[in-house]
Amino acid sequence: MSSSPLLADLVEALRCLPGVGAKTAQRMAFHVLERDRAGARRLAERLAAAVERIGNCTRCRTFSEEPLCALCASSTRERSLLCVVETPVDQLAIEQATGYRGQYFVLLGRISPLDGLGPKELGLDLLAQRLAEGEVQELIVATNPTVEGEATAHMLAQLARAAGVRASRLAHGVPLGGELEFIDRGTLAHAFGGRQVL
Amino acid sequence: MSSSPLLADLVEALRCLPGVGAKTAQRMAFHVLERDRAGARRLAERLAAAVERIGNCTRCRTFSEEPLCALCASSTRERSLLCVVETPVDQLAIEQATGYRGQYFVLLGRISPLDGLGPKELGLDLLAQRLAEGEVQELIVATNPTVEGEATAHMLAQLARAAGVRASRLAHGVPLGGELEFIDRGTLAHAFGGRQVL
Ligand SMILES: [Zn+2]
Ligand SMILES: [Zn+2]
Repeated sequence: MSSSPLLADLVEALRCLPGVGAKTAQRMAFHVLERDRAGARRLAERLAAAVERIGNCTRCRTFSEEPLCALCASSTRERSLLCVVETPVDQLAIEQATGYRGQYFVLLGRISPLDGLGPKELGLDLLAQRLAEGEVQELIVATNPTVEGEATAHMLAQLARAAGVRASRLAHGVPLGGELEFIDRGTLAHAFGGRQVL
Repeated sequence: MSSSPLLADLVEALRCLPGVGAKTAQRMAFHVLERDRAGARRLAERLAAAVERIGNCTRCRTFSEEPLCALCASSTRERSLLCVVETPVDQLAIEQATGYRGQYFVLLGRISPLDGLGPKELGLDLLAQRLAEGEVQELIVATNPTVEGEATAHMLAQLARAAGVRASRLAHGVPLGGELEFIDRGTLAHAFGGRQVL
């Protein structure tokens, strides 16, 4: 909008959000300016706080503003079960869909040499260390059923074998090529319950 | 996400954006935290600046960070033509689609008694004052072709008549029930060029 450089800046900045193109960004900017300045102010504060203070749990790598996330710090979660997921979104999907009461390890990605994502970037050294502690008896591999997710699962199975820990994989039922976060809860719960030994 | 109250706060705050539900907000929050913290920081700053510093032009009511917007301050825009639109988005659509070189007046709404929007809220006193200045020779009514937009157009035509100013309306071609901002440029340019005397 030629009449306001600040407005043009805002429209441009909104495009950092996934799925937001030029037209949508414009509508968003006009909407908050016209109808929800309080909401926009709150969003600005919370974005700044989140970016500033949310890091990763030192034990499971999920998003956390404390060195140890609430789930890792909890005394009520089963310590013999460790579920490995690609992202915090996948972790959340499993939490919401299943009755799982064990712990998690979040890779923050999947094996992808072209993107520079190897064992180191996925924190596999931290995971190996965790398995070496001896508490984990089953490693539940919940990577996505994509080519890269399967390659990651293979690597995780090797890691488990090396540590003498049983590894399992979510049951078939998760559609091939699908992403966990888009699967309905029922399917995900079913696949989780019927997980197979790797 | 139970592991981070700040993250839950961010997800909640993102819902102030139009068309953003719980699931989308979650994806947006995770996306920026995982992949674009710099973008999120910039968005936070620009949102805050926009909300803080963007007001309305004292002459045409469009968004502006100065008392007088760039378009109203411009010496190259035709002062005998005044186009009345409902929102800054509609103004932008006309600027981008047509070769219009006159000025604008932005109602920031349309007549809607149920929403408490009457002549006063739409700045019609300011518009009457503008017409009384004597420079405007044609008032181009570009409200949306909805029931409320037509009621608004009717009121604007009365205002123009009282001031002895010719009023015109965008030509048919704008689909009934449609919103200006969603119309393709060609149709809008055609309708603008073929505007009719009210
Ligand atoms: Zn943790
Ligand atoms: Zn202006």
